[in-house]
Amino acid sequence: MTITIIGIGLIGGSMAISLKENGFASHIIGVDANRESLDKALRRRIIDEACDLGEGIAKADLIIVATPVEVTLELLPAILPKVKKKVVMDVGSTKQQILQVANGLPNRPNFVATHPMAGTEHSGIEAAIPRLFDGKYTVICEAEKSSPEAAAMVEEMYLSLNMKIAYLNGQEHDVHTAYVSHISHISSFALALTVLEKERDEQAIFELASSGFASTVRLAKSSPEMWTPIFRQNRDNVLDVLDEHISVLSRFRSLLIKKDFEAIHQLMVEANGIRKILP
Amino acid sequence: MTITIIGIGLIGGSMAISLKENGFASHIIGVDANRESLDKALRRRIIDEACDLGEGIAKADLIIVATPVEVTLELLPAILPKVKKKVVMDVGSTKQQILQVANGLPNRPNFVATHPMAGTEHSGIEAAIPRLFDGKYTVICEAEKSSPEAAAMVEEMYLSLNMKIAYLNGQEHDVHTAYVSHISHISSFALALTVLEKERDEQAIFELASSGFASTVRLAKSSPEMWTPIFRQNRDNVLDVLDEHISVLSRFRSLLIKKDFEAIHQLMVEANGIRKILP
Repeated sequence: MTITIIGIGLIGGSMAISLKENGFASHIIGVDANRESLDKALRRRIIDEACDLGEGIAKADLIIVATPVEVTLELLPAILPKVKKKVVMDVGSTKQQILQVANGLPNRPNFVATHPMAGTEHSGIEAAIPRLFDGKYTVICEAEKSSPEAAAMVEEMYLSLNMKIAYLNGQEHDVHTAYVSHISHISSFALALTVLEKERDEQAIFELASSGFASTVRLAKSSPEMWTPIFRQNRDNVLDVLDEHISVLSRFRSLLIKKDFEAIHQLMVEANGIRKILP
Repeated sequence: MTITIIGIGLIGGSMAISLKENGFASHIIGVDANRESLDKALRRRIIDEACDLGEGIAKADLIIVATPVEVTLELLPAILPKVKKKVVMDVGSTKQQILQVANGLPNRPNFVATHPMAGTEHSGIEAAIPRLFDGKYTVICEAEKSSPEAAAMVEEMYLSLNMKIAYLNGQEHDVHTAYVSHISHISSFALALTVLEKERDEQAIFELASSGFASTVRLAKSSPEMWTPIFRQNRDNVLDVLDEHISVLSRFRSLLIKKDFEAIHQLMVEANGIRKILP
């Protein structure tokens, strides 16, 4: 089948690599506002052909929208009305606003809202890698609003990437990703800023940065262009989780002030419970 | 030379492995309050011999104290008075209090205060691995208070592990590690707690936990027995850094409340500056 991927970055490019490799796609068309990304993708043979949006839609059996989430909101009204017999899916990190837009458009059953839970702190076509999705979970949201044929095609595509599928509604998705993804990014951005503000005075400290530090600030390298619209669209949930996180940190703070190290020990024992989940 | 390692855990055990492998030590003696750890270390042939403290001190040329930092404070007064011609070093994550104790003891010049900046979220002899220290930094504190011979022996030992050496005073060390190690642990413990409190209601969300989440909460698996005394001994610096970290998070919070996404974008651009330091 011919697949058109709109947005040839980390996610779109990595999908292109794997869908070509596993034979799910016979022909991959790239559409991107950035001509240089398309040229790189062509030279790396990640895509077979670069088109503009109209031609990309016209030639495709399956259209994958893999742009930053605010662009997805703009693109869906330009795409869905044109696809009587094609399937359209997105891969955005937020789902409620995207579903809201899709639900008001013609050919809604041809659309499948998804979010593959995979990525790295890097972005752009340069960051596209094989096997990015292997063994990870993807979310399909409000599958009941997609036609059985459209949902089946998208499920088959994800299974070809060796992904596991979870079904959620848009609200559940946005609350859960606030907890298991979005807050990690804010925490990491904030940790980097905390230390960078110190660094103005003392360059030397970074020689000492341990691997533990590197792992907690890794996400602070993430793209502001990608993350600003995610925080905008999931603002309410992110704010709730951020409040809780600040309140847990304040608990540590107040126990340090009181020198209650027994209670600090107990908090860490509880935090160790994360081993059950991430062995 | 014969090296006695007191505390055969992640650090002591990993040192034993590498110092035997590279030939720096001809004989390694393990001392540990936990008999089971010693038995495991003997069975894995990480140590050649298990002794009690007195015999371990008597037989050694170099004594490495690799216990949790509150035990180090207790052990130094039991060890230093007995070592006229031996070298004693510690590997603790805090330095000011340990130096304060050492500075009041006989044979102070035989002691070298160090902190190899290497570790994992795991602890105990089971976690000991080869090459843990390879290419990393170690700190030597107040080297001028050690005899040239003692300092030279310890430097040679660290160079044999392929470590780079930084020289700091105790206060500099404790401030810097608060920034590049201790705050990462608190942030990670707090993130795990934030999410675990949510999990009581909704088990399912963890299926979705992304690799980004896994990397930011990895340190939350760390040992409360090791970290409680670190936070006790470095409480003032950790509190300063924690205050700054909470204040950066509160800046994100207040910008989210005001929906000032341009300023949030700008904060993330600044946080990206961490790429200069951790490419």
